[in-house]
Amino acid sequence: MIWELCDRPKNTNVRISLPAVCIVWQTAMIILFGVFIRYNEESDTHWIEQRKAKNISSDVENDFYYRYPSFQDVHVMIFVGFGFLMTFLKRYSFGAVGYNFLIASFGLQWALLMQGWFHSLDYSDGKIKIGIENMINADFCVAGCLIAYGAVLGKVSAVQLLVMTLFGITLFAVEEYIILDLIHARDAGGSMVIHTFGAYYGLSISWMLYRPNLNQSDRLQGSVYHSDVFAMIGTLFLWMFWPSFNSAVTDHGDGQHRAALNTYLALASTVLTTVAISSLFQKHGKLDMVHIQNSTLAGGVAVGTAAEFMLMPYGSLIVGFCCGIISTLGYVYLTPFMEKHLKIQDTCGIHNLHAMPGVIGGIVGAITAATATESVYGVEGLRNTFDFDGDFKDTVPTRQGGLQAAALCVAICFGVGGGILVGCILRLPIWGDPADDNCFDDEPYWELPDEEEAIPPILQYNNHMRNKDM
Amino acid sequence: MIWELCDRPKNTNVRISLPAVCIVWQTAMIILFGVFIRYNEESDTHWIEQRKAKNISSDVENDFYYRYPSFQDVHVMIFVGFGFLMTFLKRYSFGAVGYNFLIASFGLQWALLMQGWFHSLDYSDGKIKIGIENMINADFCVAGCLIAYGAVLGKVSAVQLLVMTLFGITLFAVEEYIILDLIHARDAGGSMVIHTFGAYYGLSISWMLYRPNLNQSDRLQGSVYHSDVFAMIGTLFLWMFWPSFNSAVTDHGDGQHRAALNTYLALASTVLTTVAISSLFQKHGKLDMVHIQNSTLAGGVAVGTAAEFMLMPYGSLIVGFCCGIISTLGYVYLTPFMEKHLKIQDTCGIHNLHAMPGVIGGIVGAITAATATESVYGVEGLRNTFDFDGDFKDTVPTRQGGLQAAALCVAICFGVGGGILVGCILRLPIWGDPADDNCFDDEPYWELPDEEEAIPPILQYNNHMRNKDM
Amino acid sequence: MIWELCDRPKNTNVRISLPAVCIVWQTAMIILFGVFIRYNEESDTHWIEQRKAKNISSDVENDFYYRYPSFQDVHVMIFVGFGFLMTFLKRYSFGAVGYNFLIASFGLQWALLMQGWFHSLDYSDGKIKIGIENMINADFCVAGCLIAYGAVLGKVSAVQLLVMTLFGITLFAVEEYIILDLIHARDAGGSMVIHTFGAYYGLSISWMLYRPNLNQSDRLQGSVYHSDVFAMIGTLFLWMFWPSFNSAVTDHGDGQHRAALNTYLALASTVLTTVAISSLFQKHGKLDMVHIQNSTLAGGVAVGTAAEFMLMPYGSLIVGFCCGIISTLGYVYLTPFMEKHLKIQDTCGIHNLHAMPGVIGGIVGAITAATATESVYGVEGLRNTFDFDGDFKDTVPTRQGGLQAAALCVAICFGVGGGILVGCILRLPIWGDPADDNCFDDEPYWELPDEEEAIPPILQYNNHMRNKDM
Repeated sequence: MIWELCDRPKNTNVRISLPAVCIVWQTAMIILFGVFIRYNEESDTHWIEQRKAKNISSDVENDFYYRYPSFQDVHVMIFVGFGFLMTFLKRYSFGAVGYNFLIASFGLQWALLMQGWFHSLDYSDGKIKIGIENMINADFCVAGCLIAYGAVLGKVSAVQLLVMTLFGITLFAVEEYIILDLIHARDAGGSMVIHTFGAYYGLSISWMLYRPNLNQSDRLQGSVYHSDVFAMIGTLFLWMFWPSFNSAVTDHGDGQHRAALNTYLALASTVLTTVAISSLFQKHGKLDMVHIQNSTLAGGVAVGTAAEFMLMPYGSLIVGFCCGIISTLGYVYLTPFMEKHLKIQDTCGIHNLHAMPGVIGGIVGAITAATATESVYGVEGLRNTFDFDGDFKDTVPTRQGGLQAAALCVAICFGVGGGILVGCILRLPIWGDPADDNCFDDEPYWELPDEEEAIPPILQYNNHMRNKDM
Repeated sequence: MIWELCDRPKNTNVRISLPAVCIVWQTAMIILFGVFIRYNEESDTHWIEQRKAKNISSDVENDFYYRYPSFQDVHVMIFVGFGFLMTFLKRYSFGAVGYNFLIASFGLQWALLMQGWFHSLDYSDGKIKIGIENMINADFCVAGCLIAYGAVLGKVSAVQLLVMTLFGITLFAVEEYIILDLIHARDAGGSMVIHTFGAYYGLSISWMLYRPNLNQSDRLQGSVYHSDVFAMIGTLFLWMFWPSFNSAVTDHGDGQHRAALNTYLALASTVLTTVAISSLFQKHGKLDMVHIQNSTLAGGVAVGTAAEFMLMPYGSLIVGFCCGIISTLGYVYLTPFMEKHLKIQDTCGIHNLHAMPGVIGGIVGAITAATATESVYGVEGLRNTFDFDGDFKDTVPTRQGGLQAAALCVAICFGVGGGILVGCILRLPIWGDPADDNCFDDEPYWELPDEEEAIPPILQYNNHMRNKDM
Repeated sequence: MIWELCDRPKNTNVRISLPAVCIVWQTAMIILFGVFIRYNEESDTHWIEQRKAKNISSDVENDFYYRYPSFQDVHVMIFVGFGFLMTFLKRYSFGAVGYNFLIASFGLQWALLMQGWFHSLDYSDGKIKIGIENMINADFCVAGCLIAYGAVLGKVSAVQLLVMTLFGITLFAVEEYIILDLIHARDAGGSMVIHTFGAYYGLSISWMLYRPNLNQSDRLQGSVYHSDVFAMIGTLFLWMFWPSFNSAVTDHGDGQHRAALNTYLALASTVLTTVAISSLFQKHGKLDMVHIQNSTLAGGVAVGTAAEFMLMPYGSLIVGFCCGIISTLGYVYLTPFMEKHLKIQDTCGIHNLHAMPGVIGGIVGAITAATATESVYGVEGLRNTFDFDGDFKDTVPTRQGGLQAAALCVAICFGVGGGILVGCILRLPIWGDPADDNCFDDEPYWELPDEEEAIPPILQYNNHMRNKDM
């Protein structure tokens, strides 16, 4: 009886709530964009006049040409990378790719507004002026929410995800403003701002939404052969384009160059240690696809803050080396421990892929900043790299190290606090989330093709033979 | 008896025709390229002398650096985007990706010639001079034919597709010349030139090739779980790179910047309304993968013409908003209606994804152009954006709006007229097209792997157990 | 008894050797990087001072902006292209993508060192200075080893692959130094340096590791429907980004422009002839996915050396035309012949995709170089294109042609010789390679998902019905 009540079909019926949220929120976006958002100088038709007035020699100086290739790589990471990485479950590929698509598309609009109010507001006319850098930052902001999605994958409805994204983006923008502007920390690839925040936000929500009987969905909480191959598409596009992610908004010239190089090296190193630990902790030395899909990326997360610093090529390798080990061990020991003892069910293991490497990245960034010297960076180089200008022109590297550490704490606090708050909201019984034995299943939310109509192998064979006879 | 006649094996035997067409046409291409095509100034070794003569300060001013990243994105859309978008059918993935590959590879060569004669002919030596912009335009031209392929997917042979492409490219080049050069309309992302033309061309051909008994292939005219995931690869690469598509050949500087931004926004908006309508019109609010795969792209089509104009960020969102709704409703109501009453069988629903959004794009472009003012664009900006130069230096925006509308009509006429003409040719019984009950099946045209030799799950299990025991 | 001995479980147990090799080698990399590798001028924070000192007008002149988009495309080719191309086997997709990932990640680090010693050593401080061009070259170097992997796919262990990569990279760097620096041949896309060397290296190893009873794994040495579609992802990303591969390290300006254009054309042409020959040599004119997946790429290989020369657009088409035919015929006739009579088991047919087209590419390069004239290239153009500077300022084109031919011989010798040497090492019975009847199977090396727990179609159907009734 009680089972029937919990699991009655209308539970997962989002036919009213999902369209309503989508239409109303999108309409709100249009109104807010109409009121607030305009093209910035470089994407406006007045650019040609501005260019001449400012004596800029060539169109190629438009920031578009510095950043657009990186933007497209980041865009691929957000939609294909995160989307396909989560397709590993045997019957949740539609939800993985589809909901990722939905919440990223909503999130980037809301992020343009939220980040715009904090960073790109033109006080002369009260408008937010956007261009290529805003597009990249909006994608970054969305990444935080997609990380959080990884913790609750398969256990929430699309409406819950949209609510989670709305609050996530809002919290992100505030946290980012505090870290980058008030504290004046540097965080090129977002180890703290994106990964640490996003991961703790997701983990806290998952903790609030703890499902004691989730094992009823056990038969679906695993992969099949081809779903693992699909997930590798996500892994590889994240891995390959991570150098673009960490260098997308760094300084023109050597800043972007160095960030890409450091990330490239850290990621390469991570792959080897991930394979080593994965093989070492399995019977017969077999590799586990979960590790290969996820832990190989930990180096990119951990090098995010320090990527633009003079971390040195060997420094990047060391960071990657450690993260591959820690992240893989996390999958082996920590995820089961957290589920059993801390009541945190982390579907994709984001604690191992984003939380721990993110914190490591914050610490590496603080140490690298604190030990920066003019002899290594050059006078101008030091000022440029750490942006010791304006109000912060008297900051010294050791102090910058302290600021970086403070920023890390802010990211964790916002993640945990925000997650608990939003988790409370998501526990309300109005969001159409699935019953415990319907988790990790596309069936309640997607029109599935009727597999049974596929031709069974044996009929195919007969058919084949018949064709030959004809 | 009669069934046997229609369905006799040699029907679909293209062993003579397909190799003959490929070899002869490719040989013709080599000869025509030998006679007509040379490198342009920027891809020729004389560039260094030209650069010095023209006092160009740096190699980075070579158009290659402005456009190559966009070209590669467009290239991915053509081959992976269109190719994988069509893999959704359960047994036509080889045909979808493979034929897409074939006709695009032929089409781009023929497009370089056709477009070259109209646009890049050097009258001093009678040669067509090509470079990066020609490569992009050739890919664009091919896109028109690939759209048309979507309407006839699974119902035609490779030879028919090649014939369809030959004529399609030819018609495209003429239509494009009329629209862009004679009428002097602007169409950055090709809402009219590419999408409207391509869609009506394909729909007319499908109408001419109407198959009353197509329901005999019903068991194959659907997807399976993993084929839908493959199709999402196509969807996402189209969606992500569409900003590059719409900005690939726009003006350097703010033109490319603005076009990318507008497209990015329109597409994000479309996703939300697509999800809303898809959920609203299904029982239990379930989402339909067909809508997610296709309608989410409608915003990119519809913003194609106006992407380089001052459409404003909220304008882009509005365009995307409307197109998501209209396109999804098209899949729900219009596609079945067209099949039943208009005898148009549209496999991929290109009417909803390209035809309607393309027409909307043309209209939006006309309105945006007609309402352009110097106060919004700036004097120079207005002239640059609409190319009010040379013969057209006295054009005013309102007149430009009329020209845009005229261009839309030309695109529709060429599409419908050309499609009917080519459809007649394709009805000749010499092209090796499949019988009604062989449609949507790779079997007649591809060596398929013998699925029955895969290890059945139960044997696998036994095997697994045995290994454990050993 | 003897069978039991050969096939005892610990044979394929790499639980000690794989982690040991990964950890030790990665540690060695860190130490060597610490001793030898530093940022180069353009990726160092001193860049801003250098820029001013050298009077470079803009950050956009940093080589990063010329080459990073191409680098990312090459990166995708290495990890997704090569990785997915090899997923065609029905039960070796994990190994294809996963081992490709592993050896490329190791290889690029070792390549940075090896190539650095030869090409980027700063004699003033004994350090290797790296930047974006080194990253591209490291990826190129890795490509050689991944090609070799194609020949032994499914028949070796991860440890063997790592050993093969260690030696492969070393040999590559020496061979490259001889060809590019000592002989002073030009080889933009690496027809000789990468493809010819890599292919003969792999084929020789495969010959040394000949398995007379490999037919015991016949049931696994084929594809299934979806594994072929996965492989097309690899094919298409290789095909689409090949223009970036061939132009990634060519001269700024017209050099990159022309190399991309030539490759684009050669590849398009190859597709048509591949389809033609594939259809012609199958019963009923059916296409074979093996040809479509592989031979369509032969044109990109063959145009590698001459891509930056004035090959002319029709010349590129001719090269592609011939290679499509030769490569496809190779799959039809040569691969079975080599397996039967030469004892060379070439899983992916790299002889047809890399060896023959690579040799053709070397020859085309030699002819194109030998026939270069100042009237076609211009005085400065000729000098720039062939780098007739410094010690080589008196080289004439005919002599350059001879040098190109000599380079081709060096590549073949290094490939064959190195392969035989490394093959001897890999025959040692300590590497954990699989038994003959375990080849082409992920099972010995990967934790596989339990397919038997997937819901069988019939249960699914019942389930579906039950849900409806509820």
